[in-house]
Amino acid sequence: MSYSPPVKEMLFVMEELAGIASLCQLPGLADSNADTARAILDEGAKLAAEVIAPLNAAGDQHPSEWHDGEVTASPGFADAYRQYAEGGWQGVSHPAGFGGQELAKLIASPCIEMLNAANLSFALCPLLTDGAIEALLTAGSDELKARYLPKLIEGAWTGTMNLTEPQAGSDLALVRSRAERQDDGSYKVSGTKIFITWGEHDMAENIVHLVLARTPDAPEGVKGISLFLVPKFLVNEDGSLGARNDVQCVSIEHKLGIKASPTAVLQYGDKGGATGYLVGEENRGLEYMFIMMNAARFGVGLQGIAQSDAAYQKAVAYAQERIQSRPVDGSGTEAVAIIRHPDVRRMLGTMRAMTEGARALAYVAAAHADIAHHHDDADTRARHRAINEFLVPVVKGWSTEMAVDVTSLGVQVHGGMGFIEETGAAQFYRDARILSIYEGTTAIQANDLVGRKTMRDGGAAARALLKEIDDTLAALQSADAGDAARVFDAMHRRLADGRDALANVIAYVLESGKRDPRAVFGGGVLYLKLAGIVLSGWQMARALLVAQRKRAEDPQFFGAKIATAHCFSEYVLTQARGLETAIVSARGDDPLFALSEAQF
Amino acid sequence: MSYSPPVKEMLFVMEELAGIASLCQLPGLADSNADTARAILDEGAKLAAEVIAPLNAAGDQHPSEWHDGEVTASPGFADAYRQYAEGGWQGVSHPAGFGGQELAKLIASPCIEMLNAANLSFALCPLLTDGAIEALLTAGSDELKARYLPKLIEGAWTGTMNLTEPQAGSDLALVRSRAERQDDGSYKVSGTKIFITWGEHDMAENIVHLVLARTPDAPEGVKGISLFLVPKFLVNEDGSLGARNDVQCVSIEHKLGIKASPTAVLQYGDKGGATGYLVGEENRGLEYMFIMMNAARFGVGLQGIAQSDAAYQKAVAYAQERIQSRPVDGSGTEAVAIIRHPDVRRMLGTMRAMTEGARALAYVAAAHADIAHHHDDADTRARHRAINEFLVPVVKGWSTEMAVDVTSLGVQVHGGMGFIEETGAAQFYRDARILSIYEGTTAIQANDLVGRKTMRDGGAAARALLKEIDDTLAALQSADAGDAARVFDAMHRRLADGRDALANVIAYVLESGKRDPRAVFGGGVLYLKLAGIVLSGWQMARALLVAQRKRAEDPQFFGAKIATAHCFSEYVLTQARGLETAIVSARGDDPLFALSEAQF
Repeated sequence: MSYSPPVKEMLFVMEELAGIASLCQLPGLADSNADTARAILDEGAKLAAEVIAPLNAAGDQHPSEWHDGEVTASPGFADAYRQYAEGGWQGVSHPAGFGGQELAKLIASPCIEMLNAANLSFALCPLLTDGAIEALLTAGSDELKARYLPKLIEGAWTGTMNLTEPQAGSDLALVRSRAERQDDGSYKVSGTKIFITWGEHDMAENIVHLVLARTPDAPEGVKGISLFLVPKFLVNEDGSLGARNDVQCVSIEHKLGIKASPTAVLQYGDKGGATGYLVGEENRGLEYMFIMMNAARFGVGLQGIAQSDAAYQKAVAYAQERIQSRPVDGSGTEAVAIIRHPDVRRMLGTMRAMTEGARALAYVAAAHADIAHHHDDADTRARHRAINEFLVPVVKGWSTEMAVDVTSLGVQVHGGMGFIEETGAAQFYRDARILSIYEGTTAIQANDLVGRKTMRDGGAAARALLKEIDDTLAALQSADAGDAARVFDAMHRRLADGRDALANVIAYVLESGKRDPRAVFGGGVLYLKLAGIVLSGWQMARALLVAQRKRAEDPQFFGAKIATAHCFSEYVLTQARGLETAIVSARGDDPLFALSEAQF
Repeated sequence: MSYSPPVKEMLFVMEELAGIASLCQLPGLADSNADTARAILDEGAKLAAEVIAPLNAAGDQHPSEWHDGEVTASPGFADAYRQYAEGGWQGVSHPAGFGGQELAKLIASPCIEMLNAANLSFALCPLLTDGAIEALLTAGSDELKARYLPKLIEGAWTGTMNLTEPQAGSDLALVRSRAERQDDGSYKVSGTKIFITWGEHDMAENIVHLVLARTPDAPEGVKGISLFLVPKFLVNEDGSLGARNDVQCVSIEHKLGIKASPTAVLQYGDKGGATGYLVGEENRGLEYMFIMMNAARFGVGLQGIAQSDAAYQKAVAYAQERIQSRPVDGSGTEAVAIIRHPDVRRMLGTMRAMTEGARALAYVAAAHADIAHHHDDADTRARHRAINEFLVPVVKGWSTEMAVDVTSLGVQVHGGMGFIEETGAAQFYRDARILSIYEGTTAIQANDLVGRKTMRDGGAAARALLKEIDDTLAALQSADAGDAARVFDAMHRRLADGRDALANVIAYVLESGKRDPRAVFGGGVLYLKLAGIVLSGWQMARALLVAQRKRAEDPQFFGAKIATAHCFSEYVLTQARGLETAIVSARGDDPLFALSEAQF
């Protein structure tokens, strides 16, 4: 059993929930219609299932290897990367002017998901390249864009993001790397960067590092950080590769998971300084990085969905084959496939419901990004941008926290075999564990959600979403529920409850955020989870409405969607009230700071 | 930073919550007083911290190795095991008549916890030996006891439990191993057993396998399984070791965690049959195994607590050292230790609260086992046995599910460093993942809780516990809460809510278990988690009462206990109502079986 991309489900979400039909009306997105999407997803599915997925276990068993500054990718990876690049996959959503296909982010999203479900380690390389492309598009000079973007977009070169230093992880104010301006306008960059994903490898002819560093006269803290492009090989005027730059991979990490992806320690400037080029203006590096990170964080959210789906598929296959124990209801005397046992059902139903809910929310967020980018009306763009920016920390934080739980359930479904590495379930559990950490831990996402995304606009984006949930609640009540009346009723009750819990928490954050920041930020991750649960549940409610309406067209598919929505309402949305209580009861009475540091 | 056994906290639980003072009044437990306990825990702490814990990381990096049927334990393990045996640790709770110290299970429990916090792989070997000792004490003939128990209890030989076969895991009805009676009364045993923990190794001179197998004329299913003792080396009349028996270790597994503990595939009878000895009567093997498993399952619950505590200690040490970001409340302009950040507090507070709550519940369960074993009144014994048996699946299931969550939080506290294997946080996450699987998955524990422990006695044991919770609720209201009034109020509210949720679920299980078994068993794991949360919360409430009363005696310790109880009430007990809803709403309307198997 290997990964099989759920193209039909992806298209359902794109068409029925994320509104792809209206996206192709937008300027510049004429090709982003359902037919194009279907064709691209079918091709992407082939590549993911037939070329990339088969390398996943081998990459885990034979991690990338460091030797004397060079890194050799896991067996088969370089060839698979060549096929990925030749297929034009790196350019799906990037501008046609630099060689991309300029399709909607909504179409790129399932492509990214498939690749990450097939092989998380592999997919990280293109994901980081996307980040570098975004940064250059955002802030690069025309010259930098012309020289680097076509090669990155065609996949000939790959990109990296160099933020972290040993003393500076979540707190980039502590960055110490230096960059000194030279007479020719370039900079000499020096310093040590750690945790650089695909920071060195042999899959592409050049690597374009985007590096945060300080100029000598920069102010302290986050307002003194600039962004530099530092290529592994310098690039000549004519675009050919020149000298090896002064950046060395001094080691790679020994990690819990994603072992095929080299996580590099990069040393800049040991031989006098690496040649770098300023991206945008000095001291605005963090600002650019945040724009880029918005895209990267959304991508990591997709990784969570991807790993959850892969773990789910593997668990289903095992549960359908493994024979063990008689039915609990006494309906038979022989041992049956474990998928017939109630607790296995509960686990699989929960895994499926969480994955589908999170996927729908992520794709809807992608559609908001597309409108924010392409609509010709500035107010409309701004409105959708605000919604997208509210959703990004939720998609990142919730989909990845969920992935840790879902991949753990995947191990559990396998019983003892889940603990044996050859089975493969444990790899998802190990690989997925990084997702709630990198590109900003869940706490960092929660700080963003509380501070920048809720308090800064006075709750405007949050309230816009609550209003949309109200519309869905009304639709649940007025729809012809037919023989799904019980599911509609359950969903309405739980979603209304969840909506109320979320509204109360948003009000609490707005009211207490300034006055009692420790308590409010202490509940931030719980608020993020609550938002993830309620907003995903809302998508499942929307899916339920469509599925019931169209049920006769495809009873198998839509019947499954209705049952999955029911699992979501009963096993996931039921957690909402408890989260509200935990968050709000901290008010003025914070249990977190009663212990002195020495008492821990 | 290495593991430091929390002896003071352990003694607090033993004295104030589990009632050690009354245990030493029981026949045969005169030595099981607080002074003995303190002396033993201090010694055990030394061994665990100084000898066993330092081998934990090395054992992970250098797993036990198989070569040509022989298994070499990880570096240093054999010597540490020798010290363990020489210290008399294997015999702490076993009968004096066979060389043990015959101390209360309540005293053995913290010893087991320390060992398992120090090094889970190592501690599994004594844990399995305990299981073998229990089985022989339960059902072995006087001759078998005399020949094997002294060596097992002194730690000269180790024991194993051989249940699983490739086709028979949770479902032991499918066991196929055979045993044929010989003229001399012994049996020839043949078959393949898998997942045999410490099934082969070089730390002891002999290994005593307890093996489930069928005799030729045995009935089908679980009522045709017998239990056999099969030593690695036959034992002569005079107790000396004889010929090598016909049992071979054909391989060991490559696992996600507990890598130092060899998980063996054992092949019995390739050369004509391994010599085995019937334990007890034919066809009653599963019955004996269940008695033994009760002890082993309790032990695995302690492992969950142990790994949680070890992960917590490591996370605290990191959080106190790692400097990152300014305080969110603007109280400083410099980056501070991350333990000052609210979300890190929430994570550490949750880890600590769950661990302390689960520990208290487990030790209380151990005290019930002691009374059930030693009291001179039969009715009292029966009453405490029923409570203990109700608690065992909860302690096993809840402490281990909790350990998966707590060790994951431990990784999260470390941020990116948590994903790097050298840090050590990831080892706890990997090692702990087996705990909710082996010795019966959480679903198997839940089936036991629903069927044998709730429905069979009509809820009598469950109601007895609810009654005790009511007493604690009354005490919370009548106590002088002093300046902890808010904590008392919060705890009373949440515990009352949780008690009500648990009572509703117990009523639902009793009412619907027979009529709607799929729905009830489908909610079994959630019922187990609810019981774990409420019963642990109850212990935290009892601890709160003591801590407030004695606060002046030790403000540091008791103040921390009060704050930890508050974390439990707000972050853990708040989940109770959502679990109730998820369980009870399945009534007659089960979302789990709406999907056909093909729709998954």
